[in-house]
Amino acid sequence: MITSQKALEIILDNTENFGVEEVPFLESLGRILKEDVKADRDFPPFNRVSMDGIAILYDVFTNGRRDFHIENIQAAGSEQVTLKEQSSCIEVMTGAVLPQGTDTVIPYELVTIENGLATMNTETVNQGQNIHVQGKDRKTNDILIKKNKIISSAEIGVLATVGKFLVKVAKQPKVLIISTGSELVEVSETPLTHQIRRSNVYTLVSLLERLNIKAGTTHITDDKKILKQKIEQFLNDYDVLLFSGAVSKGKFDFLPEVLDELGVEKNFHKVKQRPGKPFWFGHTVPLGMGQRDENKPKKTIVFAFPGNPVSTFVGCVKYFYPWYKKSVDIVYENHQKAILAEDFTFKPNLTYFLQVRLENKKGLLVAVPIKGNGSGDLANLANADAFLELPSDQTDFKTGEAFPLITYR
Amino acid sequence: MITSQKALEIILDNTENFGVEEVPFLESLGRILKEDVKADRDFPPFNRVSMDGIAILYDVFTNGRRDFHIENIQAAGSEQVTLKEQSSCIEVMTGAVLPQGTDTVIPYELVTIENGLATMNTETVNQGQNIHVQGKDRKTNDILIKKNKIISSAEIGVLATVGKFLVKVAKQPKVLIISTGSELVEVSETPLTHQIRRSNVYTLVSLLERLNIKAGTTHITDDKKILKQKIEQFLNDYDVLLFSGAVSKGKFDFLPEVLDELGVEKNFHKVKQRPGKPFWFGHTVPLGMGQRDENKPKKTIVFAFPGNPVSTFVGCVKYFYPWYKKSVDIVYENHQKAILAEDFTFKPNLTYFLQVRLENKKGLLVAVPIKGNGSGDLANLANADAFLELPSDQTDFKTGEAFPLITYR
Repeated sequence: MITSQKALEIILDNTENFGVEEVPFLESLGRILKEDVKADRDFPPFNRVSMDGIAILYDVFTNGRRDFHIENIQAAGSEQVTLKEQSSCIEVMTGAVLPQGTDTVIPYELVTIENGLATMNTETVNQGQNIHVQGKDRKTNDILIKKNKIISSAEIGVLATVGKFLVKVAKQPKVLIISTGSELVEVSETPLTHQIRRSNVYTLVSLLERLNIKAGTTHITDDKKILKQKIEQFLNDYDVLLFSGAVSKGKFDFLPEVLDELGVEKNFHKVKQRPGKPFWFGHTVPLGMGQRDENKPKKTIVFAFPGNPVSTFVGCVKYFYPWYKKSVDIVYENHQKAILAEDFTFKPNLTYFLQVRLENKKGLLVAVPIKGNGSGDLANLANADAFLELPSDQTDFKTGEAFPLITYR
Repeated sequence: MITSQKALEIILDNTENFGVEEVPFLESLGRILKEDVKADRDFPPFNRVSMDGIAILYDVFTNGRRDFHIENIQAAGSEQVTLKEQSSCIEVMTGAVLPQGTDTVIPYELVTIENGLATMNTETVNQGQNIHVQGKDRKTNDILIKKNKIISSAEIGVLATVGKFLVKVAKQPKVLIISTGSELVEVSETPLTHQIRRSNVYTLVSLLERLNIKAGTTHITDDKKILKQKIEQFLNDYDVLLFSGAVSKGKFDFLPEVLDELGVEKNFHKVKQRPGKPFWFGHTVPLGMGQRDENKPKKTIVFAFPGNPVSTFVGCVKYFYPWYKKSVDIVYENHQKAILAEDFTFKPNLTYFLQVRLENKKGLLVAVPIKGNGSGDLANLANADAFLELPSDQTDFKTGEAFPLITYR
């Protein structure tokens, strides 16, 4: 059995590049940017008026003039006008181009306007004030967003500003989520006493939705022949298979055997962790010169999680998420931690994923353990916010100690 | 001018209830649950085998027996079988019903099986071991998720488990996002020197997408007559109007005037904050006995943010988000804070929304100021992760001090 740390290392050695596609920028929220986004012009693109008021020539003010004939109006969105008489002024609006022949803006608040004459009520004027100078924020060709960033609302605004109507983003892997187990019935059905409803696939679907991956789902009954036949097809059709169940020691846990028979290379089976120990991970082996099938040059990656709800959940956020993030080259990942709110003891030599509720106390993330009933207790996940990852080589975990945090809300 | 705190109070006094709708559970991710979700049966629903192995009667073991004839197999998803001979055992699989007549499960690891006979390799056995007892996690009718919770992947799993194929969630408000300003051109167009591309509406669209609100968008040119005519219609058709621009002192900032003429009650105009000072907030007044229009019994809420990109952004996350969350009754909101990474000074008597990058240092959220060029510098938002809200009555903000945090990633 390998450690959780080693398991993650192996998984991160098996990432894949799924290429790039172009999408309309408004559909790119949450996707991974795959090009540097540059300024298509200076920002601001012109000397931009930043207060409503009047624009004057500063030298005229220093020479003693305090009242200015209003010669024209410069509205936002209008072509630049020119001041004809230096002793005059032009009314200017926020967002407008600074009129030719002016260099200073006096806000309306400091001016009295009567009969087309603007009289200043202030002696404090700085040359160039209330002007957002062309190129002050960014110059043409400056990189505004580096590639490999997750696109948030802030990036959407930048993409719109520079006219990136179509934007290059990471293509998503084609993922199929597969449940096994004869005890499972559909959500809309009423289970018999010995049956339960199928839930793990839907948990996984929604966990992948958070990554903007639209995964397919299917169910295979615990029949070895059917299992083998279907998985063979899926290995051809998908980049990633996520299984839930059939990886333990049971008489009908055919999955490791079937994957082996189909030539899927096992990287490991079983990890020193709780919950989620019987986790199986492997990948297909490309034939010949790194190519398995002309239509499918890539490996298919297989994550087979144990079927207990909490085990499947942990498996996805602890292993699939980082695998995906490395596959699409997300550059920056701030390693989150939180501190324990109370002493906790866990004896087995296993990494323990403790369910916790998070509180922010003056900037400190505090993790309060939520006692559940083990890996079958799905409802407990709804009471918690995150897992705190407690290392296997430690038994007593003290209040105030910081540990890695995996949030899922 | 009112304080930012007072502005928020007024906004939260003007929340609305948009009712409840039923959606398929898989489409409910990110929505607000509007019913208590109860256990439809005990969990586990039967005495559930939790290890693959053999099930025996404990008394027979204490009486000295160590080898057991294998009488039958109890698979997961099969109806409960019965142990016929007390001295025998039944092979059992994880997830199966515990066979009638047995009370203890010995894992395969501790058993040798040969010729239909299971011989135990251990003397350490506890009665009832490796059985997840019916109802241990939850009893029928226990509340598994309380209403008014944001539905995450954990809740999706619970909804599936209890068969909530359709789930009651908060209806979303009907929101229209309106840009104004003659200087704006579409994202796909190339602006002339004095023009810029329309970006704020798209930033707002994506900020609302994070709340699962699909907002409409439109643009109105700076023409008072057209503005009035269109807004009159929008006030009838929408629950919320979000404006960007035309609220300052400019000659073409008709919005406050037009809203007044349309009978929209102004709650406030201008807030002591930077950026985003000229923020205008108000609502329509229902006619007669709390009813304005038979088809539209509710108030329409108007948020009119200043047109600078950072001002609009702050306005949305600082005011619209809490308004929405209170409107849909989200019960639990952990007030996020972070500590300053370096000293910072801000003199004006205004609440300052400092742009920061976040780092997690051993559980402590540290906010590193990202220097930008003011409210027009949209690209700076892409370098930051959040705003730190610095109170107006303080000038010097010290390293290590904690302040309210508004994240947007």
